[in-house]
Amino acid sequence: MSEKNYYKLTMAFDGSNYVGWQIQKNGPSIHAEMMKAGSGFLEDGFTITGCSRTDSGVHALGYVALLVTERDIKERGVAGAFNAHLPRDIVVHHVKQVTKDFHPRYTAKNKHYRYRIYNNNYRIPQFLHYAHYFYKDLNVESMDEAAKAFVGTHDFVGFSSTKTTVEDTVRTIESCCVTKVDHHIQIDIVGNGFLYNMVRIIVGSLLEVGTGKIEVHDMANILASKDRNKAKKTAPACGLTLVGLEYM
Amino acid sequence: MSEKNYYKLTMAFDGSNYVGWQIQKNGPSIHAEMMKAGSGFLEDGFTITGCSRTDSGVHALGYVALLVTERDIKERGVAGAFNAHLPRDIVVHHVKQVTKDFHPRYTAKNKHYRYRIYNNNYRIPQFLHYAHYFYKDLNVESMDEAAKAFVGTHDFVGFSSTKTTVEDTVRTIESCCVTKVDHHIQIDIVGNGFLYNMVRIIVGSLLEVGTGKIEVHDMANILASKDRNKAKKTAPACGLTLVGLEYM
Repeated sequence: MSEKNYYKLTMAFDGSNYVGWQIQKNGPSIHAEMMKAGSGFLEDGFTITGCSRTDSGVHALGYVALLVTERDIKERGVAGAFNAHLPRDIVVHHVKQVTKDFHPRYTAKNKHYRYRIYNNNYRIPQFLHYAHYFYKDLNVESMDEAAKAFVGTHDFVGFSSTKTTVEDTVRTIESCCVTKVDHHIQIDIVGNGFLYNMVRIIVGSLLEVGTGKIEVHDMANILASKDRNKAKKTAPACGLTLVGLEYM
Repeated sequence: MSEKNYYKLTMAFDGSNYVGWQIQKNGPSIHAEMMKAGSGFLEDGFTITGCSRTDSGVHALGYVALLVTERDIKERGVAGAFNAHLPRDIVVHHVKQVTKDFHPRYTAKNKHYRYRIYNNNYRIPQFLHYAHYFYKDLNVESMDEAAKAFVGTHDFVGFSSTKTTVEDTVRTIESCCVTKVDHHIQIDIVGNGFLYNMVRIIVGSLLEVGTGKIEVHDMANILASKDRNKAKKTAPACGLTLVGLEYM
C-alpha cells in the first residue's frame, strides 16, 4: 500500500456565486470546484475535507481544507496546480504539509468570522460587494457593549436556525467586537464553534441594539431564554466572511 | 421664459460595466444612464453636464455633474428621484442647489484620483474589484519618493496618451503620495487637471520604480524629456477611482 500525503490548504473565496462549501444539488459549491481542480492534476482517490459547511453566499479569507493524496508534491506546487485549475473567485493561498493527526475541523482551536455593514443614508455601490447595506443610524458603542453578552460559554440554541440538527448547542465565544471606521462597521467574532446561522442571528440582534429596539442589558436575557423567537432576524449572508482558523 | 434651476450632483459609480461618463456608440455610459433616469421625472429640455470624461472601467466616489432644469425641486427630492430611476451601480449621493455661475469643470479647483494596487504573491478574489493585482514585490518607499517628481507645474505631454487632442499640456499637481497598509497600496494624486490617461501612465511608471527597473531620481528626467516612449505602460483602468473635486 502506498503512503499518503497530507496537505493543509488555506483558501480565499468570493462566495457570491456558490451554494456554500458543501456539495449540493441546487448549485455550484466550493468543494465541487476543488474536487474538479484536483482531478486536473491528481490521481483518483484523493480526498478534500473542509473545516466547516458555509452558508450560500458567505465568503472566506482563510478557509482551511485537508487534501489527502498518494502523490508527493512540494507545498508550492500544490498551490500552483490548484490555482491553475480553479475559477478566479477561489484561490489556494497557502499550503503546508501536515501529519495524519491534523483534521481541519476537529483539531481547530477557534474560528474567526467577520461581518461587515455599510452604514450610511445612501448606498455607495463600490462598498457593497462584501457588506450588508444598512441605512438607519446605528449606535456602535451600544452594539459593542451588547456584544459582550455573547463572550464566554453559553447555550446558543436560541441563536441558531431551527433547522439545526446538532445535539450539543453549547459554544464558547472568546471575543465579539463591533468597530467602526467612517461608515464601515465590522463585527469580529472568535469562538470554538458556531451553530447553523449563529453569527448572522447574533448580527441581526446587534442591529436591533444599534437602532435602539433592544436595550444593551436585554441581550444577556435574550441569550439565557434559549428562545429562537426572542433573538432577531438573520442578517444577510453577503456581509459574512470566515477570516481564519487557529489550530492546536 | 421660465427660470432655470441649477443643481450640483455628487455621484458614486462602479464603472466596471460602462464605457465611461461620455455617451459613446460602443456601450452604455454613465451620462446616458443619468439622462434616462432624469427623463423619468423631469420635463424635456433638462441638461446634465459632467466634470470630466472618464476612461472605460474607471470608478468614482465623488463625480460631479450639473443638472439644469425648469423644475424647482428640493435638493433631497432630486437625489431620491434619480436614485429611484438609476441602476444599482450608480448613485447620486449629494445634491446642492447652485447659481448659474457654477460649472462642474471650469470652476473646479482640483480633482483627487486614487489608484489601488493589491500587491501580494497570490490573488485574493475579494480584494480585486477596484484594485490592480500586482504580484512582484514593490518598494513602496521608492515609489513614494519618485512620486514627488510629479508635484508642481510641469508639461505632462510625455505622460498622456498620444491620442490626446488638447493643446495646453501643462498641469499642476498638488500632491502625489504612495501609501501601503498590509498588501494594499494606494496612490493618491491631487491636481488642477489631468490629461488623457495621465494618472494611469504615472502609476505605470511608479510601478517600474517599485520593481527597481527605474531609479527614483530618473523620474524627473523622464518627465522633463516630454517623451511618451520614456514614460511607461498605462496601468489598467480597474484600479482607478475619481475620489472627488474641490470648487472655488
